Amino acid sequence: MGKNLTSREQDYSKWYNELVVKADLAENSAVRGCMVIKPYGYAIWEKMQAELDRMFKETGHQNAYFPIFVPKSLFEAEEKNAEGFAKECAVVTHYRLQNDPENEGKLRVDPEAKLEEELIVRPTSEAIIWNTYKGWIQSYRDLPLLINQWANVVRWEMRTRLFLRTAEFLWQEGHTAHATKDEAYKEAEQMNNVYADFAENFMAIPVIKGLKTESERFAGAEETFCIEALMQDGKALQAGTSHFLGQNFAKAFDVKFTNKEGKKDYVWATSWGVSTRLMGALIMTHSDDKGLVLPPNLAPNQVVIVPIYKTDEQFEAISGLANDLMKQLRQKGVSVKYDKRDTHRPGAKFAQHELQGVPLRIAIGPKDLENNTVELARRDTFTKALTPVEGLVDKVVNLLEEIQTSLHQKALSFRDDHITEVNSWEEFKDTLTTKTGFVSAHWDGTIETEEKIKEQTKATIRCIPLENKIESGVCVFTGKPSNQRVLFAKAY
Amino acid sequence: MGKNLTSREQDYSKWYNELVVKADLAENSAVRGCMVIKPYGYAIWEKMQAELDRMFKETGHQNAYFPIFVPKSLFEAEEKNAEGFAKECAVVTHYRLQNDPENEGKLRVDPEAKLEEELIVRPTSEAIIWNTYKGWIQSYRDLPLLINQWANVVRWEMRTRLFLRTAEFLWQEGHTAHATKDEAYKEAEQMNNVYADFAENFMAIPVIKGLKTESERFAGAEETFCIEALMQDGKALQAGTSHFLGQNFAKAFDVKFTNKEGKKDYVWATSWGVSTRLMGALIMTHSDDKGLVLPPNLAPNQVVIVPIYKTDEQFEAISGLANDLMKQLRQKGVSVKYDKRDTHRPGAKFAQHELQGVPLRIAIGPKDLENNTVELARRDTFTKALTPVEGLVDKVVNLLEEIQTSLHQKALSFRDDHITEVNSWEEFKDTLTTKTGFVSAHWDGTIETEEKIKEQTKATIRCIPLENKIESGVCVFTGKPSNQRVLFAKAY
Repeated sequence: MGKNLTSREQDYSKWYNELVVKADLAENSAVRGCMVIKPYGYAIWEKMQAELDRMFKETGHQNAYFPIFVPKSLFEAEEKNAEGFAKECAVVTHYRLQNDPENEGKLRVDPEAKLEEELIVRPTSEAIIWNTYKGWIQSYRDLPLLINQWANVVRWEMRTRLFLRTAEFLWQEGHTAHATKDEAYKEAEQMNNVYADFAENFMAIPVIKGLKTESERFAGAEETFCIEALMQDGKALQAGTSHFLGQNFAKAFDVKFTNKEGKKDYVWATSWGVSTRLMGALIMTHSDDKGLVLPPNLAPNQVVIVPIYKTDEQFEAISGLANDLMKQLRQKGVSVKYDKRDTHRPGAKFAQHELQGVPLRIAIGPKDLENNTVELARRDTFTKALTPVEGLVDKVVNLLEEIQTSLHQKALSFRDDHITEVNSWEEFKDTLTTKTGFVSAHWDGTIETEEKIKEQTKATIRCIPLENKIESGVCVFTGKPSNQRVLFAKAY
Repeated sequence: MGKNLTSREQDYSKWYNELVVKADLAENSAVRGCMVIKPYGYAIWEKMQAELDRMFKETGHQNAYFPIFVPKSLFEAEEKNAEGFAKECAVVTHYRLQNDPENEGKLRVDPEAKLEEELIVRPTSEAIIWNTYKGWIQSYRDLPLLINQWANVVRWEMRTRLFLRTAEFLWQEGHTAHATKDEAYKEAEQMNNVYADFAENFMAIPVIKGLKTESERFAGAEETFCIEALMQDGKALQAGTSHFLGQNFAKAFDVKFTNKEGKKDYVWATSWGVSTRLMGALIMTHSDDKGLVLPPNLAPNQVVIVPIYKTDEQFEAISGLANDLMKQLRQKGVSVKYDKRDTHRPGAKFAQHELQGVPLRIAIGPKDLENNTVELARRDTFTKALTPVEGLVDKVVNLLEEIQTSLHQKALSFRDDHITEVNSWEEFKDTLTTKTGFVSAHWDGTIETEEKIKEQTKATIRCIPLENKIESGVCVFTGKPSNQRVLFAKAY
């Protein structure tokens, strides 16, 4: 299993594709660009969902559910948004199939069952939601409206990759409505902070919080906050975005409210989302040539126990200890699996759990029972040691915390080592090709320069970091004055 | 609010529609037949999901996710299933919009972006899932495969009603694969039992477990287990189904496995699902003319505390007690909300919480503080009583349990009062019109008779109860011999 994985150095892209499939996370389906998320991958996604959902509710949001379809007339109401998504829409045009008279046993679209108005499978839900909010908002008393939705969306991407870019993906989309610009802006910023907190502390992925440039903004947004992560191949990955939408959607859908002074005004909006793309970020941040490496917070099984035995008696005795350990570990909130399958040898089990990134492995053999020890192995560092049963449970709890912290620290060092300040165009190009990672450079603030740089290097401005220092300099490309650096990178 | 609700006696159907909207559960959307599930309704659905998910996992199932689209060629592979759903399919035919040259600012479907093969928006996922299982199952070691999916599905129903019948709905669909017929059959039965357990003990809805007749079976199933509930208007509602699919899908998608003896055989299958339709069952089982009545297990807020005050000082003092009570209640696992909105009067709050079915209301006024009491009111019985603060928390915990049991008991009495054994055709018709409910009658076992009865009375066979006694008799319609009674009813 693990030994068959292409190494990252050999072919990073191939390594990723193989790992996703071999670790049983996801696979391609019969539908072009759509993936099947397999149970092991879905279990990780469920852990992300649970934590994010908790964080959303803690910040006052409620879940709701809106239709998967957007009638074309609503879809086109907010022009920039429509323009941004029109080219990648799945469109429902008919509502019935019938027997194909020319092809027995086959079905065809019933030409009589054509919809009067086409329905777009939502690529994002601003249109259908703001059309709904029109009925919900009359007065300032109805605000703020703080709603989130867990849903599937469809964007007909031409080039797809498991988790990173798929025609259908799962996500959450928050859609909030506010009485003031300031409140909406702060909400957008707050939710970007929630994402950053989640990425850093739960996924162990260091991220840079920033603003998108105009050309990289969400279609229909006035400001897009984002968190940007760095993958091991030196390419950046946008892990989450939060948009201040101004009054654009309120105007497109005529959503006004009466303020405390009795005057009517358009409502201010935000939207924010993260998706199953986070699975890609997770894999590419921590994993290695042996397979998946999971931060304990996201591991479906944090510990696996493997018995090593020849006789039934040995198995019984080992199982006694294993069951006892499981009980104690579960009491401490540790998820643990006892892999007692008799269809696989210990070596195959070790390889599978390594490939699937189980943070800690406990192996117990007959000798261990005699000595009252186990073999405790760490997935991230490959260290293993004979460990006394006495004190083992506390040791495991501490180790899991240590692994969580250590993975974050490792990724942080890598990321920080891959932010390079450059001051000339030569340096810029050179860094992108030889060192990779984020290139911190002065930029003249124009879309034209941004585009030219992209054409020549494939690097885009990932973000204008929020905690940027003001520093005068000159644009690396045009030499025009600039007052802060922005982060360029090649990106997923 | 509540006072504006049409009474059940006046117009049951109107009462239901009004209640769903006024209690903020759901509303119709801009998309024909699709609903918006509002936060309060969604919070109830989340409670159902959490409990069902726990029950599925406890019985060894794992979640996964499969594509929303089914290519037409896969959709038509299992003929009966295809035939059953072909007439109500949303079909995606194009993947791009473009600017409409004849209509500035508008979009139209790009005629060049026609899909080579149409995609059906899943009405159910057997086809796409069994096509996937083909790659997952080679040997008996890969079985059983016990997978569940939480998803949205689309069935283009012509007549829709909020929660009960909508073009898009949310559900879970379990899809399992087994090495033997016996194991699959038992799985289908087990999951029907899980549904029954959930309905009775969590939703406080009494259900009858049974088998569907051939004509009421799921398209593609060899046996359909179901749970049938009775609504307050005497109409039955199918609350969940679990299908033994035989080898139909394995044959349609060529899914074979090597058994322990090294021989190849087709895999045996089940599928089972419950949907947001359960929200309709919940509402119609327990609610009354004042609004929603919620079993405590499903109430987003089990207790609401309403302060009654005139001065800020009074409010502060009341809030002190309220916060203390909340803390204690939460420690006992009770969900509680302090409704301290200053935009609404106590009367309006009372009406809203009544309409939304909060099981217990605690009102606290200045007099209560003096006397160390509160007013404790029960939603289901409308009883209210001055209650000492001392011992209040335990009292609330006990009352919540009592309400849960009492709602179930009440619904059970009603249901049992509405199962009528009839022995003649006159009695049959008479019972259906005057008394309503389930009619227990002998039937000759033929589809023809079933259809004629349906034509003449609109009653269908809801199920052949699993715990039926064998009893010889004659069919009420044809006089032919029969060995057991079946349950007829008009149904949702």
